[in-house]
Amino acid sequence: MQGCRGMYMILLLLCIVHCEGGVTSSYRRKLDATVDMPLDSDVFKVPSGYNAPEQVHITQGDLEGRAVIVSWITPSEPGSKMVWYGLGKGNYSHSAKAKVSQYTYYNYTSGFIHHCTIRNLQYNTKYFYKLGDGDSAREFSFSTPPSVNPDAAYTFGVIGDLGQTFDSNRTLQHYMQGNGQALLYVGDLSYADNYPNHDNRRWDTWGRFVEPSTAYQAWIWTAGNHELDFVPDLGETEPFKPYLNRFPVPYHASNSTSPLWYSIKRASAHIIILSSYSAYGKYTPQYRWLERELANVDRTRTPWLIVLMHSPWYNSNGYHYMEGESMRVQFEAWFTSAKVDIVFAGHVHAYERSYRVSNIAYNIVNGNCLPVRNESSPLYVTIGDGGNAEGLAAEFTEPQPAYSAYREASYGHAMLEIKNKTHAFYYWHRNDDGKAVVADSIWLENQYWQ
Amino acid sequence: MQGCRGMYMILLLLCIVHCEGGVTSSYRRKLDATVDMPLDSDVFKVPSGYNAPEQVHITQGDLEGRAVIVSWITPSEPGSKMVWYGLGKGNYSHSAKAKVSQYTYYNYTSGFIHHCTIRNLQYNTKYFYKLGDGDSAREFSFSTPPSVNPDAAYTFGVIGDLGQTFDSNRTLQHYMQGNGQALLYVGDLSYADNYPNHDNRRWDTWGRFVEPSTAYQAWIWTAGNHELDFVPDLGETEPFKPYLNRFPVPYHASNSTSPLWYSIKRASAHIIILSSYSAYGKYTPQYRWLERELANVDRTRTPWLIVLMHSPWYNSNGYHYMEGESMRVQFEAWFTSAKVDIVFAGHVHAYERSYRVSNIAYNIVNGNCLPVRNESSPLYVTIGDGGNAEGLAAEFTEPQPAYSAYREASYGHAMLEIKNKTHAFYYWHRNDDGKAVVADSIWLENQYWQ
Repeated sequence: MQGCRGMYMILLLLCIVHCEGGVTSSYRRKLDATVDMPLDSDVFKVPSGYNAPEQVHITQGDLEGRAVIVSWITPSEPGSKMVWYGLGKGNYSHSAKAKVSQYTYYNYTSGFIHHCTIRNLQYNTKYFYKLGDGDSAREFSFSTPPSVNPDAAYTFGVIGDLGQTFDSNRTLQHYMQGNGQALLYVGDLSYADNYPNHDNRRWDTWGRFVEPSTAYQAWIWTAGNHELDFVPDLGETEPFKPYLNRFPVPYHASNSTSPLWYSIKRASAHIIILSSYSAYGKYTPQYRWLERELANVDRTRTPWLIVLMHSPWYNSNGYHYMEGESMRVQFEAWFTSAKVDIVFAGHVHAYERSYRVSNIAYNIVNGNCLPVRNESSPLYVTIGDGGNAEGLAAEFTEPQPAYSAYREASYGHAMLEIKNKTHAFYYWHRNDDGKAVVADSIWLENQYWQ
Repeated sequence: MQGCRGMYMILLLLCIVHCEGGVTSSYRRKLDATVDMPLDSDVFKVPSGYNAPEQVHITQGDLEGRAVIVSWITPSEPGSKMVWYGLGKGNYSHSAKAKVSQYTYYNYTSGFIHHCTIRNLQYNTKYFYKLGDGDSAREFSFSTPPSVNPDAAYTFGVIGDLGQTFDSNRTLQHYMQGNGQALLYVGDLSYADNYPNHDNRRWDTWGRFVEPSTAYQAWIWTAGNHELDFVPDLGETEPFKPYLNRFPVPYHASNSTSPLWYSIKRASAHIIILSSYSAYGKYTPQYRWLERELANVDRTRTPWLIVLMHSPWYNSNGYHYMEGESMRVQFEAWFTSAKVDIVFAGHVHAYERSYRVSNIAYNIVNGNCLPVRNESSPLYVTIGDGGNAEGLAAEFTEPQPAYSAYREASYGHAMLEIKNKTHAFYYWHRNDDGKAVVADSIWLENQYWQ
């Protein structure tokens, strides 16, 4: 650990040296063909035993972290629907029953999708749980977060646009070697929609692929464009249908009316999840929810205010350039006013971090439309570099705009180590290096407590 | 008519004189208290007879004008559900059966809402129709438009934000004295949502109030923010519920997947209706529909390309200033590329017309964010001056921006007289004058054929 910390400090100094100009990394990743792992890959293997639970994933199940939603799929029949859980392996003193559903998508019919919320857990506690029956039973574990309090230390991972390529696998393995306690996922999950008829079997393979992490720690979900699965020509006109059927979130707990935007508190963080692909105009449900949500953030309890969305607002890659403008125009002033600490987005298949900037002075007739440094603004991180299915976005706009602090077209993931109410260490790894090598990093001073 | 035309020409010349600077009208409307007409007003009177059809309104029922959707409500029971229709009064050679539904909203239950599409009508033909049974039967008529062809003359009225105040009534009466053949309605209908629990009886009164026009000519509907009726605290979380139950549109005909955005062709016009309060980000259903829709416009058949939406993009009133920015940023370049002739919006309770301008050069780093004259751009008209329930928006931003050609805080309505494929005469009346007095007008040269 001390070695790591030394490395971080060197990189931090390097960053400071570069701070004025912004860095376009000279790192040149060897570009392989981007290709999904084949269906018979080990990572997609169906667990053995009749009707064995598969695609196990958990997410936070309430507002403050005392509940977990456990989700899994059984292929042949609903089965017992039970989650048995307790404080020791094999010591399952509690149980809860899942709701089961199926959905169809064009010519695909899903397995039996189970969602079960287990509540009244103790904070900061390791739980073991069992799913499935008889010989097909499977056992997992997770740890609850500390109670919500301003000085709670907690480490989040951040991944976006993961997909199920060989690069995706490298990102996931790389992340799992680290110390992440929960994962902030910024949209674009399976890329099943790249297949003919959006072959939903690729949603199933993805669920099995990520299970080694998602069964053991909460992944906090954000919807991306690859979750839309909107294909009128196939008769599929309900946006986000596979995603919403598979990945429940506790949106009611934050008074949201849609699973596409919601919030949770976890340890010392208040995390707001937004939808780039829902309505956000004034008066709309998401707009009204966010307005009220930001007013209710209590930085004395949750100093760290984090926002997740899919389409970035500050992106200088040619790929998806300016796609986030419409939403930025709508909400950016609120983020600056609320002193959001950091915004994570995906979508662009590369990595980029901004300076603290805003572009909120524009009033149509004043010409003030250049982003400017603003210490009340969030850092904006674009981290759609999980592995995807479409290759890296290696064409940055030139020259590097003044708002862009660091950018690099590599696959990777980030970590946000919250130390206390005033400081957090944020860093990004590219996959190509060992776990200890950090390519971009910055100490964050809390925007409220600094 | 000749007198009118002379008047128009004088006003046109006045306009040209002013064209460089933009006019803020010096007309000062006497400001009455804005108040809804009381429930016992004559205009809200329930028709006599047991279960008599009420709130009769028609809209175009197909893509090109050979079908009409007839809608009405019966208070006590579904009744016969039939529309009898034919070419002479009392000569009802045809009939069609409505679908009937009800909806609830908090503690309100609607009457029996009938929607009946009658098809295969002849173009350019007057039809008579009868609804209801026995002594309660009621008779109406409408005229179909000419077949879709580039030189078809046709006159559209334009009204927005009508509401049900005394001013609303003046607007409706004023409009009905004119020669409008169909009405383009740019959102905010009843303002029922201003009442406690969004008292939906005010949707019923509105339906009765507008019936003298809506039963006799097609009103083309656009949803505004007052149609959202989104009140989680009342358990009402389905946006647009009363509106969508009451005002059907032929959205399937234009391959839309939502009644909130769709198109029709009528005479020589292709009319696109958009939703300011639905998702419009890239990849979303509305975005994808509009992209395909604009590509399919055939100006050789329908030279006049008209867009309706609720929230204006070019508004210099302090009221709702910049609310349309987010959608403008998303779609404006498409409108200029498609050479849209004219965009009608409502929302702001005043009248404003722009020059042909665009603001599409901005690329974040170039600072080019001032609207500039652009002959490929639409005229933008804000006409949320129907009567509403909240008073006039009389605080314009100063100085008048260069994009604003004419603005005035009065109630009124507009007319678009399409003469042929190259020319149309557009004019706006304030309510306070007689029918012959036009306050703003302009000859439009077709953006494709000029």
